[in-house]
Amino acid sequence: MPQLIFVPGPSATYFTLEDHLKSALKEQVMAISHRSPAFKGIYKFTVEQLRQLLDIPQAYEVVFTTSATEVWDRMAENLVDTHSLHHVHGAFSKKCAQAFQRLGKEAQMITAPEGTVALFDPKAVEAQPELIHFTANETATGVKHPMADLREAKKHFPDALIAMDVVSSTPTTPIPFEDLDSVYFSVQKCFGLPAGLGVWIVSPRAIAKAHALTVAGKVYPSYHPLLEMVDKGKGYQTIETPNTLNIYLLGKVAEDFRRKGVDVIRREAIYKNTILIKCFEDHPLLSPLVQEKDWRSDTVAVANVEGGSAPLIAYLKEKGLVVGAGYGKHKAAQIRIANFPTHSKEQIELLVDLIADWRP
Amino acid sequence: MPQLIFVPGPSATYFTLEDHLKSALKEQVMAISHRSPAFKGIYKFTVEQLRQLLDIPQAYEVVFTTSATEVWDRMAENLVDTHSLHHVHGAFSKKCAQAFQRLGKEAQMITAPEGTVALFDPKAVEAQPELIHFTANETATGVKHPMADLREAKKHFPDALIAMDVVSSTPTTPIPFEDLDSVYFSVQKCFGLPAGLGVWIVSPRAIAKAHALTVAGKVYPSYHPLLEMVDKGKGYQTIETPNTLNIYLLGKVAEDFRRKGVDVIRREAIYKNTILIKCFEDHPLLSPLVQEKDWRSDTVAVANVEGGSAPLIAYLKEKGLVVGAGYGKHKAAQIRIANFPTHSKEQIELLVDLIADWRP
Repeated sequence: MPQLIFVPGPSATYFTLEDHLKSALKEQVMAISHRSPAFKGIYKFTVEQLRQLLDIPQAYEVVFTTSATEVWDRMAENLVDTHSLHHVHGAFSKKCAQAFQRLGKEAQMITAPEGTVALFDPKAVEAQPELIHFTANETATGVKHPMADLREAKKHFPDALIAMDVVSSTPTTPIPFEDLDSVYFSVQKCFGLPAGLGVWIVSPRAIAKAHALTVAGKVYPSYHPLLEMVDKGKGYQTIETPNTLNIYLLGKVAEDFRRKGVDVIRREAIYKNTILIKCFEDHPLLSPLVQEKDWRSDTVAVANVEGGSAPLIAYLKEKGLVVGAGYGKHKAAQIRIANFPTHSKEQIELLVDLIADWRP
Repeated sequence: MPQLIFVPGPSATYFTLEDHLKSALKEQVMAISHRSPAFKGIYKFTVEQLRQLLDIPQAYEVVFTTSATEVWDRMAENLVDTHSLHHVHGAFSKKCAQAFQRLGKEAQMITAPEGTVALFDPKAVEAQPELIHFTANETATGVKHPMADLREAKKHFPDALIAMDVVSSTPTTPIPFEDLDSVYFSVQKCFGLPAGLGVWIVSPRAIAKAHALTVAGKVYPSYHPLLEMVDKGKGYQTIETPNTLNIYLLGKVAEDFRRKGVDVIRREAIYKNTILIKCFEDHPLLSPLVQEKDWRSDTVAVANVEGGSAPLIAYLKEKGLVVGAGYGKHKAAQIRIANFPTHSKEQIELLVDLIADWRP
């Protein structure tokens, strides 16, 4: 019997995936040349669906990478000469800062304790940053960065690019593009697609910065420089033979999301999150990791489990429900539950009922 | 009606793909965590199938990249300090050399005229190369590099690593691993899979070289350094969330190939190639691009078409058969036909009969 998978990514696939895979086979999407008009049509359709779903400004460009991890390298290579500033409140925001450091950038980290948000603090900034990085939704801890902070950062450092990891929150949490220059996500979280594709959205300011660094000979000339990706993308093309299947599936699921209505997806997420948090609060052995209500993720709920999370995970697994363990060093102490668009209200209600009944 | 696609990659998908996609859905391959035992099992199975199918020596390591294009960058970054030597007989072997040059390497090209092979020539070598690159099968022109040349190169430069692009020839053309240190392919050619995955196979000598360069601080610290990929791979893991679906499908198709027998695949390719070349030779308006018999690819047949290839391509397309145009500047003058394991003898016979009947 198939399991209900609530691990925060890769997670349960979107329920329309099987139909779209059938269409992809029928339309020979996996066999067409990536230089063909058919491919260009797929690329164009997907970008248009994303633009409408996420309300991406027309002047912003959308390019495809192979993962969000790749975007960390490409941001460091294309958007920063020497200094970046990173708000770190978990394993993934830290890994991003470390990727910049590996590539020789002075990447300052502002770090917050587990379960809280690393807020922008102009007094803590050591050097004028060229790029300020935020993580909308830290998948490791389930904290959400308050979006008002972006504007605050921009006010203090108007020349800096503002970047945001929206990997596990898109499209559930709205993205304030007017305050952002570099936004990226991967498709195996809320979109419920197979992994292997990243989406990177850049503002005209980000492109101008990449241009200035390129002219100065400061951009690492990998096979995926931002300016070349943007150029190719304008012709609905990619540099290398891309993951055409995933680009196709992303367009189809983005269209499904639009038909359902992104507002409906967002309302459902709030309901599902509310009953998850209440369940954590009501259970004698559970407590939500994130105490501050406004900082609680819309899409990933994390709880501390007294005595360790393994028995709860095993109990749920026996009933066919798979939830995530804590991330990294918190593996044994926490559970992490994804509340993605594919996780229906009924599924989360079932999960909540089972957790409520659980006693080790 | 579905078309019969003979474009040399992406090309027609392998005929078992649909079944494997169904199994992947049933087994929730696209939903599992890439840190789970289930993922490790898939990774292990696929590598084992490849080892047996291609006769990869046990001491060689197999890692997954996002494309063969990525491998060009990773080879330049991890295996070469200053000098490489490239045998260029078409667009793809040239692009590889250019990728090395972009990344600051002194990449010497030995270039051959269109339709011939750039053979190793010790007298032409300007500087002691650290890596000597060959292309087994140039997808742009349909020439095959004679494998004896690898040993010749090794004899003259015993300290150099020998690298080979086997993108569009594997598994049809056998790979002499004993003469090779770095071998790579992507899965959208002979394996008939969706694009978005590269396979990179490295010898202990290649790993030792990467180690020496790493210790010397000379390896570009991307998110995909060879040594870290190898380390993760030993635990059947990847650095980033990978294209799990494609890794799964590759294992399944490699298993199918083994069941059929790689010898059968090779014999069929020779038969299909023979009738394709004969058809080019017999037709008043066609001629094979590659004149030297021993240099003709096992998997990609290219013909010059007097008066231009567009009418022939259109005629075949009307009958539901899609062949490739020439590559790059030869787009209008040539046709390119893939002879991959998924292209059955009957399909190639049909194609040959139609071409034989064609008069513009």
